[in-house]
Amino acid sequence: MEAALEKSRILMEALPYIKRYHGRTVVVKYGGAAMEDPALRESFASDIVLMRYVGINPIVVHGGGPRISAMTARLGGRPSFHGGYRITTAEDLEIVRMVLVGVINKDIVGLVNRHGTLAAGLSGEDGNLIRVRKREADGADLGFVGEVTQVNAAILTDLLSDFIPVVASLGVDAGGQTYNVNADEVAAAIAEAVGADKLVFLTDVAGIMGPAGELLRQVSTADVAGLRESGTILSGMLPKVSSALGAIKGGVPRVTILDGRLEHAVLLEIFTDEGVGTMVTA
Amino acid sequence: MEAALEKSRILMEALPYIKRYHGRTVVVKYGGAAMEDPALRESFASDIVLMRYVGINPIVVHGGGPRISAMTARLGGRPSFHGGYRITTAEDLEIVRMVLVGVINKDIVGLVNRHGTLAAGLSGEDGNLIRVRKREADGADLGFVGEVTQVNAAILTDLLSDFIPVVASLGVDAGGQTYNVNADEVAAAIAEAVGADKLVFLTDVAGIMGPAGELLRQVSTADVAGLRESGTILSGMLPKVSSALGAIKGGVPRVTILDGRLEHAVLLEIFTDEGVGTMVTA
Amino acid sequence: MEAALEKSRILMEALPYIKRYHGRTVVVKYGGAAMEDPALRESFASDIVLMRYVGINPIVVHGGGPRISAMTARLGGRPSFHGGYRITTAEDLEIVRMVLVGVINKDIVGLVNRHGTLAAGLSGEDGNLIRVRKREADGADLGFVGEVTQVNAAILTDLLSDFIPVVASLGVDAGGQTYNVNADEVAAAIAEAVGADKLVFLTDVAGIMGPAGELLRQVSTADVAGLRESGTILSGMLPKVSSALGAIKGGVPRVTILDGRLEHAVLLEIFTDEGVGTMVTA
Amino acid sequence: MEAALEKSRILMEALPYIKRYHGRTVVVKYGGAAMEDPALRESFASDIVLMRYVGINPIVVHGGGPRISAMTARLGGRPSFHGGYRITTAEDLEIVRMVLVGVINKDIVGLVNRHGTLAAGLSGEDGNLIRVRKREADGADLGFVGEVTQVNAAILTDLLSDFIPVVASLGVDAGGQTYNVNADEVAAAIAEAVGADKLVFLTDVAGIMGPAGELLRQVSTADVAGLRESGTILSGMLPKVSSALGAIKGGVPRVTILDGRLEHAVLLEIFTDEGVGTMVTA
Amino acid sequence: MEAALEKSRILMEALPYIKRYHGRTVVVKYGGAAMEDPALRESFASDIVLMRYVGINPIVVHGGGPRISAMTARLGGRPSFHGGYRITTAEDLEIVRMVLVGVINKDIVGLVNRHGTLAAGLSGEDGNLIRVRKREADGADLGFVGEVTQVNAAILTDLLSDFIPVVASLGVDAGGQTYNVNADEVAAAIAEAVGADKLVFLTDVAGIMGPAGELLRQVSTADVAGLRESGTILSGMLPKVSSALGAIKGGVPRVTILDGRLEHAVLLEIFTDEGVGTMVTA
Amino acid sequence: MEAALEKSRILMEALPYIKRYHGRTVVVKYGGAAMEDPALRESFASDIVLMRYVGINPIVVHGGGPRISAMTARLGGRPSFHGGYRITTAEDLEIVRMVLVGVINKDIVGLVNRHGTLAAGLSGEDGNLIRVRKREADGADLGFVGEVTQVNAAILTDLLSDFIPVVASLGVDAGGQTYNVNADEVAAAIAEAVGADKLVFLTDVAGIMGPAGELLRQVSTADVAGLRESGTILSGMLPKVSSALGAIKGGVPRVTILDGRLEHAVLLEIFTDEGVGTMVTA
Repeated sequence: MEAALEKSRILMEALPYIKRYHGRTVVVKYGGAAMEDPALRESFASDIVLMRYVGINPIVVHGGGPRISAMTARLGGRPSFHGGYRITTAEDLEIVRMVLVGVINKDIVGLVNRHGTLAAGLSGEDGNLIRVRKREADGADLGFVGEVTQVNAAILTDLLSDFIPVVASLGVDAGGQTYNVNADEVAAAIAEAVGADKLVFLTDVAGIMGPAGELLRQVSTADVAGLRESGTILSGMLPKVSSALGAIKGGVPRVTILDGRLEHAVLLEIFTDEGVGTMVTA
Repeated sequence: MEAALEKSRILMEALPYIKRYHGRTVVVKYGGAAMEDPALRESFASDIVLMRYVGINPIVVHGGGPRISAMTARLGGRPSFHGGYRITTAEDLEIVRMVLVGVINKDIVGLVNRHGTLAAGLSGEDGNLIRVRKREADGADLGFVGEVTQVNAAILTDLLSDFIPVVASLGVDAGGQTYNVNADEVAAAIAEAVGADKLVFLTDVAGIMGPAGELLRQVSTADVAGLRESGTILSGMLPKVSSALGAIKGGVPRVTILDGRLEHAVLLEIFTDEGVGTMVTA
Repeated sequence: MEAALEKSRILMEALPYIKRYHGRTVVVKYGGAAMEDPALRESFASDIVLMRYVGINPIVVHGGGPRISAMTARLGGRPSFHGGYRITTAEDLEIVRMVLVGVINKDIVGLVNRHGTLAAGLSGEDGNLIRVRKREADGADLGFVGEVTQVNAAILTDLLSDFIPVVASLGVDAGGQTYNVNADEVAAAIAEAVGADKLVFLTDVAGIMGPAGELLRQVSTADVAGLRESGTILSGMLPKVSSALGAIKGGVPRVTILDGRLEHAVLLEIFTDEGVGTMVTA
Repeated sequence: MEAALEKSRILMEALPYIKRYHGRTVVVKYGGAAMEDPALRESFASDIVLMRYVGINPIVVHGGGPRISAMTARLGGRPSFHGGYRITTAEDLEIVRMVLVGVINKDIVGLVNRHGTLAAGLSGEDGNLIRVRKREADGADLGFVGEVTQVNAAILTDLLSDFIPVVASLGVDAGGQTYNVNADEVAAAIAEAVGADKLVFLTDVAGIMGPAGELLRQVSTADVAGLRESGTILSGMLPKVSSALGAIKGGVPRVTILDGRLEHAVLLEIFTDEGVGTMVTA
Repeated sequence: MEAALEKSRILMEALPYIKRYHGRTVVVKYGGAAMEDPALRESFASDIVLMRYVGINPIVVHGGGPRISAMTARLGGRPSFHGGYRITTAEDLEIVRMVLVGVINKDIVGLVNRHGTLAAGLSGEDGNLIRVRKREADGADLGFVGEVTQVNAAILTDLLSDFIPVVASLGVDAGGQTYNVNADEVAAAIAEAVGADKLVFLTDVAGIMGPAGELLRQVSTADVAGLRESGTILSGMLPKVSSALGAIKGGVPRVTILDGRLEHAVLLEIFTDEGVGTMVTA
Repeated sequence: MEAALEKSRILMEALPYIKRYHGRTVVVKYGGAAMEDPALRESFASDIVLMRYVGINPIVVHGGGPRISAMTARLGGRPSFHGGYRITTAEDLEIVRMVLVGVINKDIVGLVNRHGTLAAGLSGEDGNLIRVRKREADGADLGFVGEVTQVNAAILTDLLSDFIPVVASLGVDAGGQTYNVNADEVAAAIAEAVGADKLVFLTDVAGIMGPAGELLRQVSTADVAGLRESGTILSGMLPKVSSALGAIKGGVPRVTILDGRLEHAVLLEIFTDEGVGTMVTA
């Protein structure tokens, strides 16, 4: 009886959130521990499926990370980075693409499919979803690293009523050349293009910390600017924070930096009063 | 942290039920304590709204009960019954209609509207929704008491995509005469007509009891027949059990006799492993 | 042969009016003798059904009047008015609602249904159709008397392709409290909200009279202002004239004040050169 | 006042007929006096337009008659007939087509357009609407006289929601050769193909007469067979009666042989109790 | 093998043109040798059918020419012209209409139908497609010669998804009177009204010639103005050139004056690099 | 001039084939030289794009072949086969998937996109497109080699109106495990599931040869059975022939075994009288 009351209390707590996000699109940048740890992977997949069933349209965007480096090493290469970007030769690009599209993307698709609704994997190359140009990096040649110039969302729209799209962060330039693209950037660009109501970054940190090291629950873009200037935001967080600010400028009303190391982090963020991580709003 | 885990556990427990009922119609016969007690009324309304938001199409059917008798008395009449049916003179009928449609139906509509999605009240007379003929009762003349002959569901269909229909248990005969109809019977007839996946009777008992007085969680129609023959089912339950069996025969796969005296009984029945009350299946 | 010629002449006379109103919406405020006299009731219902069949979308709006006072008296209350408004206590409101929704509305629905097309009864509470706020009356507290602030026409739109909506003049405020609302005001607000081509008030007078007591066939809003200033319009007509002017200001091109004491007044007004009553235009 | 009552009485008399034919298709074979006399032409056009406005879909089919013979003579030819069919040489066919499509069809289109809704003229050749084969006539060679083998109704369907189709009675064979076709036959074939609710033949007789020379109001196909055997039906009526019986056999529920010499004959037939002419039913 | 390569080369050459015109509308003014010579007629029909199958929506517009004069003479009249316009008496108009609609239009419809897709013939009178007013000609009375004032394209739109419209160049004025209209002018007006991507005039000349008598492949409207001023454009071409400039001003991006004396001129113009005739662009 | 005539002749030759396949689906199994040779790759892509533009819906299915073995070797493995199937360990499967989905599929997508219409790459895992079970091989354990049990074509249907689907031949079993599947088998299963009008196998042979070594242009399934029994069909062709027969049995009317070593083989097969390769029909 106690248990029953507790259950109904928690389901009721979810109701206002279900209302708020009903029929809305939420873009989730998937990565970090949530993508590596088996238990976290399962909890992530079930969160996404629950979102879908209560009427939210989730879109998952992912990059590669450690597995790309592992495969590069195995094939005799040596990953090198510049300013946070993986320098990508033609040979590297082939490995990136194999791992991103042929391993990670399909693993996520299979994971979601096993939880009972259907995912469809896409590369940013499919239907020219992500158009890019070569990224300029003062001095250095990053190789095939692109920056997003346009999102052709038609392929997402066609799939969204029946499937959960899972997008690997690649793009193509005007000439049809494939590029490696930062997944945070792709997630932000897609969120803008489809008019998402929320963009969630799954990370391996608790969120944005304040000057006293305390977790900030909610910050405005102005707060973020202040924290950045005062050096409070750690350099590792800077690109993510940049993508977040860009997305908000582009019209996405809410961006959350979420601690992906917690089980069901996405679900708790979306459906409970708790809130895990830091929400950035205009 | 504990709380968060508990929350995600309970939301996850709901997921398979959300999947099962997604896009399905559930007809709820509303009545008894759940319609009289203020707290239970609120919990009922929020349960119905939650159902709607997670993609279920609820239809609420209600009768009148004590308030009709009260108004009859106030207007100088004296309620009289025969075989469980309210003998309904022309003057009684006007009172029944005033109270059912003009008081109870609109109270339920207002209750649901205040919980954030929109209800639309209907009488079985609107759009000839419930067609009836005069009920024969061996010997006695029941007056304007009808039995359902047909459901014209078009008005429900028109409203169902935007609203939660709330139906007062009246009907009209071929000549346009209004009749009082048993609400259990109306609920069962509507459940059949719209192809509902589940029919729920909110009652003031725990459910169907077994020979040893224990609550039966799930029974087949065959079990019910046995219990009825052996006299285990109390006479007060018999009409409801009859409506349940009729609905199952008419193609409704699941009928639940639910203890409406519990808060959030509908929600617990639909979304948790708990199960409250007795589910009757073919 | 003569008869045949006469028939074709009259049907032909209707043709330009059928063309003019084809596919348009006409809101009819129903009341007065046309609602009380049995023969007039029948002729009203058949007029509405004919309108529907020749491609016009009629919406009927009604108030209560004498029957509310009768029931109030029967239940021991005493109707009291202030400035034309029924002072409405909580107990009065319950009676108003019972009679408006549970008696009059359903009687009209049944009446129309018996003439061969289907009506669907609504209260302004259904789907929050009529949003109101408490009406201020200098000095006096009118109780639960509302003035319209918004019309949520979705429920009308959902029903209009299959049914003739019949609306009881109640409303709800932002907190979900029900209010009694003047039916002329509700009719005018609905006419504006749905972009009606015509608003018809069925009254118990011949129309608007000129200074010499002659019936005015057609007047402009400017004419009406003049008549009002010169005191030619009787005080009983003033609220109706106010609603008419408001509707025209809100974009309804034609408002007719019609003599509901004539059989088939609506039909003659819509389909013949005759014209009965006074048409007010911008 | 008297006039007003008479008007409402007649409009009310039309109501049940408007209901019966609402949304239905009525095929009218147009010809005879109604096509030649200027006043009858106007009354015909307004009848068709009225039908359209009250929700009926009329389709007009016409032949040629006297004007073809006149043009043939003017161009130096000499019309000749065999068994009621115009023997049609290649040169005759060109004249038939010129007059049917280039004169009569466009005159009817213009006539209807001037009454306020839009007609669209078609030949049975357009979109291969009427497929025919050469008609065999024992012994004689009728030339380019076809009998209908198939109706490709797509072109009617495309136009029917916005226009009144007016069809000239020509057809094409499998090789694309045009043929002259009897207009009664074309009307009957189209009525079958589009599932018309009624087929009306406008003629220059009062209808089918009984043995005593009295006009028969309604006859069954069995009655017609009897009258034919007993020689009561005049030979001039026989082909029309044949087409009527064929249409009924093909599923058209009602065929009326109408006296087109009366003004508004179509309107009186469709909308009044009068009935003019003879209705044949299964 | 050689042949196969040649075939694939030519089909590939067509690809960019198929892409460019996919889903677009092309209006073809049909006339001259292409309408008289049997072999050219067949090649024209197959070109139009091919256009249709590769996803282009062709609309054919035609006038009359020699056959009208022939019929006029045969019926004892004498064609007379003023400033390039056929002076059209009421009697002439009947002949024009008979020949245009009853002969030429149906011949083209039959021709296209025999090549495997379905044409539907229209006069500018059908559905009031071409609205005109009487053309003023300084001094002279041209009779029933109209100039286009409006295009009611609904009838084209209804037919375009299933049929190839073939339009005879007639029009009606506000009073419903039919007029003879120049076919080039009708083609240009329709091209504007439907937002055609290209307008093609089939003529009996090679195209627009330059000062040295050389064929000009592509000219701008400015070039054309220059050529006209310098007297290089022959008077016979002037009306056509006027219509072309009007269409371009009205938003048609490309107008081609095509040599209809070549087999498959339309096909070569649309699908190959060749280009036959002169293309005029803004 | 000569050239122009030749061009129009060839485009006209294509017309009947464009008609035949208009709106139909053609599944192309892509592989062999056509997938390896750069010039053939380009000609293949333009053929597919042309098909699309003339109204055919192509679906491309591909396997892996030499590039999988190359990557296996590079990663230190050793490809081994049994009965024509690649024995696939868990580690092999990862390589198969990386190469099929992450390299070959995306290369084809890019190739088509560069020719001007948009391709969308899919794995048989996306949306559970290809459901399989483990393939039994008498005695041997083939590892993760599946045979098709079901095709969930919804994802193809969603994409087909805007994109050209390109499918990598993988599948998933009921438990969500990925399997390597023979691409001919996948192509045949998809052709059946979507009701394709034609299935084309691009191979490195001329087609099916007769007893005298001559290329057979068209054979029935009965002929094929005879050739197989008589040992005329070489063992390398047997699996392909099996898939062809299976597809025909499953309702695909035409299967062509095409010589992919010819430029524009697909285009010549679809659009010319030539025909390259062998067409198998029921």
